[in-house]
Amino acid sequence: MRVAIIGYGGVGRAFVQLINGKKDYLYKEGLQIQVNYIIGRNGGVYNLEGIDLQDFMEFGLKQRNITKYPKWGNEEVSFEKMILNRDVDVVIELTPTNKETGEPGMTHIKRSLECGINVVTANKGPILLSYKELKNIAVKNGVQLGIGCTTGGALPSINGGMMDLAGANILSIEGVLNGTTNFIINEMENNKITYLEALKKAQKLGIAETNPTLDVEGWDTATKLLILTNVLMNEEKSLEDISVEGITKITPEEIKNCLAEGNKYKLVGKTLKNNGEIRMTVKLEKLDSTHPFYVVDGKNKAVRYVSDVLGDLTIIGGASGVIPASASVLRDLINISRGYRFCR
Amino acid sequence: MRVAIIGYGGVGRAFVQLINGKKDYLYKEGLQIQVNYIIGRNGGVYNLEGIDLQDFMEFGLKQRNITKYPKWGNEEVSFEKMILNRDVDVVIELTPTNKETGEPGMTHIKRSLECGINVVTANKGPILLSYKELKNIAVKNGVQLGIGCTTGGALPSINGGMMDLAGANILSIEGVLNGTTNFIINEMENNKITYLEALKKAQKLGIAETNPTLDVEGWDTATKLLILTNVLMNEEKSLEDISVEGITKITPEEIKNCLAEGNKYKLVGKTLKNNGEIRMTVKLEKLDSTHPFYVVDGKNKAVRYVSDVLGDLTIIGGASGVIPASASVLRDLINISRGYRFCR
Repeated sequence: MRVAIIGYGGVGRAFVQLINGKKDYLYKEGLQIQVNYIIGRNGGVYNLEGIDLQDFMEFGLKQRNITKYPKWGNEEVSFEKMILNRDVDVVIELTPTNKETGEPGMTHIKRSLECGINVVTANKGPILLSYKELKNIAVKNGVQLGIGCTTGGALPSINGGMMDLAGANILSIEGVLNGTTNFIINEMENNKITYLEALKKAQKLGIAETNPTLDVEGWDTATKLLILTNVLMNEEKSLEDISVEGITKITPEEIKNCLAEGNKYKLVGKTLKNNGEIRMTVKLEKLDSTHPFYVVDGKNKAVRYVSDVLGDLTIIGGASGVIPASASVLRDLINISRGYRFCR
Repeated sequence: MRVAIIGYGGVGRAFVQLINGKKDYLYKEGLQIQVNYIIGRNGGVYNLEGIDLQDFMEFGLKQRNITKYPKWGNEEVSFEKMILNRDVDVVIELTPTNKETGEPGMTHIKRSLECGINVVTANKGPILLSYKELKNIAVKNGVQLGIGCTTGGALPSINGGMMDLAGANILSIEGVLNGTTNFIINEMENNKITYLEALKKAQKLGIAETNPTLDVEGWDTATKLLILTNVLMNEEKSLEDISVEGITKITPEEIKNCLAEGNKYKLVGKTLKNNGEIRMTVKLEKLDSTHPFYVVDGKNKAVRYVSDVLGDLTIIGGASGVIPASASVLRDLINISRGYRFCR
């Protein structure tokens, strides 16, 4: 399987490290991944016979600019060149997310699928904006689009709804989909501190970003909920269809009272289907100790589906960080190589 | 997809009802299931162009002996005849489980795979005894063997370990895999009754069998744990390799003290891999409120995997009964029709 990695940030680096370290596993799997392109912002690396990943990673320890890689680094290696060459089977699209335009990922994914190249992506933007269109392009061209990493990284939320509930109708989707807010609430519970104090701790630990708005105002949760809803319920909703509330106003008093009642607050994204009507919300919910999300603490994530014939399904997990994220990209790649048609 | 149903008990009946009721879903899925054979103990029904399931089910309301079905019922319809005809793509093997010999399921599965026919089964016996051998026959003949229903029915335990953790190494398997014992413990907790009282209630409700030994002595849990271990860790262990303890000795006093400590008892099956060494146990474990199984009450089931690169994954669900069981057979069938290669 000949692969092009487009976008070489944290997840891209982790992915290269992962497939290099997983050689034995992949060999047993019968899957030989040959990386022909690694493309960053200002060029990249290209080798028709596969880049020597071990050597490339050693180079990367000393130099961040991959176009300086002496063997095959070049400023002229680009996505367009790759499309012209058409010498890969899968594009791994890992450029930064843009939720307004989806670019540059949108173009990368569309063009690749149109050229009959499979795509696995961690980029939420294009999937959020145009999943159905992209899926149709994939179907038309007989290729696959793997998006498992866009809705909680290692948490198999798309897999859970698609593969684990194959044959069932999903009636509702519920999720604790954002590790940062879950961590903040947990800190407030454990240490009786204010929201701002907990946020600062999360920022200090690198769990929350310097600008935490997307997480704490609920938009990251909303984005993931939207993707899950559109993909698993075959909808074409947008963010405006979701009523979104964040966690910024919660007080230590409220947390204390909630715990005293034996309950816990979680930021829950929820889609309910009722007589064909879809209702989507993101808000703080008080969960009692019988709710399966009660045990979802710290940076953990979870999703719960209610289905018609396969009952309720709760999935808890989703380790955070670039390694699990890159492993969820590899998961899609392996499932595609095992023949699974995500796009039919 | 031309199908033969071998074994027509509760799950078989539910399966026929399910695919008849799910016509629209299956049509959208692009999967046309045509049932050519329904074979019971003393013969069956055969129609080369597909049995009219609606009509057949209506007949079934009045008459249990399917060979009396006026259209195509016949005492001479048999598995061997079907193998001679070779006019199906998938065999759904649903005969009763025999954990000593695996028969008659073992022969059905082997012969079908050898003849290039895919198999989906709910029959634990053959899988428990000979998964690796059967898988190899499937690989050799380029067909699939779906076994999702053998380890917790609707609970996607095999799927979880295979598809949701594709690319990861599984380091441990832990499960609350038996709904009956979980229900009994739960009854003792809620109503302060003895083990025998709780068992009687479970029997009255049809949750426990008249002879509950397999469940309450831990052997059902052990069987499922063994299948998960052999399939997901590529082992060839047998039941003798598991240290098995049941729940029959637990007292209301112990339950009360456990609850007072804020903990809960669960019958947990566990496989730990350590430096290549496998250790398997089934026993009552005290779980505190941070354990993801803490919320797994009543007839619910759960499985938890610890992996190297995709973190911890807990799956809770597994509605009980013949409908979810038959839906888990359909799930395997759909995933195979979507191209997934369980056997590679």
